[in-house]
Amino acid sequence: MELEKKKWGFQGNTELNSASISVRGVMNMLMGNISKDDNRPIIPLARTDPSTFACFRTTAVAPDAVAKAVQSFEFNCYAPSLGVASAKRAIAEHLSKGLSYQLSPDHVCITAGCTQAIEIILSVLACPGANILLPRPGYPQYEARAAFSKLEARHFDLLPEKAWEVDLDAVEALADHNTVAMVIINPTNPCGSVFTFQHLKKIAETAKKLGIFVISDEVYAGQAFGSNPFVAMAEFASIVPVMTLGSLSKQWVVPGWRIGWIVASDPNGILQQSGVMECITSYVEMSSDPPTFLQVALPQILGKTRSGFFSNILNILREDAQICYDGIKEIGCLTCPHQPEGSMTVMVKLNLSLLEGISDDMDFCLKLAKEESVTVLPGFVVGLKNWLRITFAIDPSSLDDGLKRIKAFYERHAKKL
Amino acid sequence: MELEKKKWGFQGNTELNSASISVRGVMNMLMGNISKDDNRPIIPLARTDPSTFACFRTTAVAPDAVAKAVQSFEFNCYAPSLGVASAKRAIAEHLSKGLSYQLSPDHVCITAGCTQAIEIILSVLACPGANILLPRPGYPQYEARAAFSKLEARHFDLLPEKAWEVDLDAVEALADHNTVAMVIINPTNPCGSVFTFQHLKKIAETAKKLGIFVISDEVYAGQAFGSNPFVAMAEFASIVPVMTLGSLSKQWVVPGWRIGWIVASDPNGILQQSGVMECITSYVEMSSDPPTFLQVALPQILGKTRSGFFSNILNILREDAQICYDGIKEIGCLTCPHQPEGSMTVMVKLNLSLLEGISDDMDFCLKLAKEESVTVLPGFVVGLKNWLRITFAIDPSSLDDGLKRIKAFYERHAKKL
Ligand SMILES: Cc1ncc(COP(=O)(O)O)c(C=O)c1O
Ligand SMILES: Cc1ncc(COP(=O)(O)O)c(C=O)c1O
Repeated sequence: MELEKKKWGFQGNTELNSASISVRGVMNMLMGNISKDDNRPIIPLARTDPSTFACFRTTAVAPDAVAKAVQSFEFNCYAPSLGVASAKRAIAEHLSKGLSYQLSPDHVCITAGCTQAIEIILSVLACPGANILLPRPGYPQYEARAAFSKLEARHFDLLPEKAWEVDLDAVEALADHNTVAMVIINPTNPCGSVFTFQHLKKIAETAKKLGIFVISDEVYAGQAFGSNPFVAMAEFASIVPVMTLGSLSKQWVVPGWRIGWIVASDPNGILQQSGVMECITSYVEMSSDPPTFLQVALPQILGKTRSGFFSNILNILREDAQICYDGIKEIGCLTCPHQPEGSMTVMVKLNLSLLEGISDDMDFCLKLAKEESVTVLPGFVVGLKNWLRITFAIDPSSLDDGLKRIKAFYERHAKKL
Repeated sequence: MELEKKKWGFQGNTELNSASISVRGVMNMLMGNISKDDNRPIIPLARTDPSTFACFRTTAVAPDAVAKAVQSFEFNCYAPSLGVASAKRAIAEHLSKGLSYQLSPDHVCITAGCTQAIEIILSVLACPGANILLPRPGYPQYEARAAFSKLEARHFDLLPEKAWEVDLDAVEALADHNTVAMVIINPTNPCGSVFTFQHLKKIAETAKKLGIFVISDEVYAGQAFGSNPFVAMAEFASIVPVMTLGSLSKQWVVPGWRIGWIVASDPNGILQQSGVMECITSYVEMSSDPPTFLQVALPQILGKTRSGFFSNILNILREDAQICYDGIKEIGCLTCPHQPEGSMTVMVKLNLSLLEGISDDMDFCLKLAKEESVTVLPGFVVGLKNWLRITFAIDPSSLDDGLKRIKAFYERHAKKL
């Protein structure tokens, strides 16, 4: 056996295995724990993919545009590295609608979802010794890609008692001359909060003071249904250079389509001067990009989707957020510090002292999956041990069912007084 | 100016810029050199993308399957990390047709084209100190990804006088205990050769002796139109573990669709034991994958394409190869050591001593682009300085036109005796 191993002189880069403590990995463990004897439907509150629910069905405009492009036989060729020109124009136009100035198509890069946008940015910034500031709780792709690229990740907190705003003092304390950028996610995954105009402006000013730029993950752009309207970080690009990341995944509810973008907002040419833009071009020249026909469909999709589609989705999300917030109040061991007002997820605190025989968040989630066929993400995956991330973007009646099952689970496991 | 630079404390990882001396980069330079005053059509003999020529149009089966999948509204969700189960099964079945045994769907990973397959494999193998053996001439994505991952690349020659077979003595001389794998491309890009059964077997035996596995890039699988039939490297998996890379790009002439695969043929479980398979899973868990609807279309595409489609493409390629070989014979400064019998490209040697005022292959290609609106890839990009790589997969009459223009160019620049 040992001999056999020795004879073959290769191995995989096992550092990878620890770099990817991914949502997907934990999800697989939870799904593996679901009991086959339970005839009830599984309630998926761990993964953020509402596309399989009828009420979250995408607009027909989108698949029709894709079908037309692929059936034209005209777009089977390779695309330019940074993307098809008409798609870059369409994205610049689409994002400019929410801004007081016009974005340039020359600063757009089409990516295979926001996932590849994260890969590109973090790979490009990974110089020896460099570090990047990430939010806690956050989205673990950033941690995985930073670890893989050997870019040091430093974490600043989002403050639950302050509507999950960024702890800007912590940002200042963390940054040094090797810090390249800070990441914000707005509307926030996992907190379900939406940053105010004033708070975004303060983030910009802090970053400018520190000489770092802002990476704004706006994959949930526009998905604000509370009192704070969504404001794009690019609005503050005259203060600080901004890289905006986004995709069709959440807004059009087509996460499986894998099309997204990076847009640089850099009126003072600082990213350009720093060489970051050139490095992005180099990186995408050796990377795979989204299918040409899908890129060609973008102008139709972005331009022809009626506002009714978005308002309908927002109405369901608003209803879901309320059901979720109310349902959590009924579950003794959970506390929700801030009613969700954006994105598709919310963070709730787990009070283990009220539970019998549950050791931590992972244990809670594994047992919940087994006993109630409900999946919820343990908070440690997103940076907060003994919290839970609940995805509320599913159909409202299933959500209600799921929360009732969590309540039953709690009551069964509550510590007897 | 310096001050402004200092204020912002970040920069891109400029190592990237040198890692990506890509086909795309040189292509852009050639295209930039084409004269706007030339009214003749550009003849593209540098890039391997025949999809825009009517005679290379894909089969309607393919876009119809994609359109159906996307318009069903059923496949907008995220896909499993390694790919949709039905697509993995379809690929295992498709590739098993050419083999004496059956491949398992469990050893298939769906990728965003062969480009991402290369990215995944090289990232996974990049342990500190490791090296990989690459063919020269070859496909520069391997060099770019190896450099980016800090995986040392060592080159063995393909021998023009031996029908571009692998110099196996060189392979043995290059390998040491840090060598993880050797890459072959078959049918070869850029040489246009097809390895015999016997030669592939010798490659397997050499790799086994060295304790390394074989990465077989079969993106041109089946595209053999000379006397050597295409044989899949996986046929020798009982001798040595094989990773086969492939895609729809060339065989279905849809390079812009970005769908491909990695298939491990590993009957003795050696890749499994080495941890390589686990690392691939970890890597794809943090990466973007091809659109779910495109994956779902794969079984239809692979299963329903009629053999007439492939034989038609082969007939055109065979005709093209002959036109190319004959045309080159007429051009004094070019020698083609081996008539192309597979893939879409051929290597020809440039005799600079017969030319006046042309300093090297790049100079030749830049001037040719300017004077004749013909693009040809300088050999240095694929590892052979002062050779040229000519793509013959375009419509036959354009190819003929292109070769005549190269002849005229030569005659104008020939050294006067
Ligand atoms: C904050 C955040 N960024 C990026 C992504 C990835 O987006 P995409 O599906 O476009 O790759 C997600 C997906 O859930 C996300 O929540
Ligand atoms: C040898 C080789 N490998 C890989 C690729 C990339 O293939 P894909 O278009 O599927 O990404 C090419 C493309 O030309 C190639 O020639």
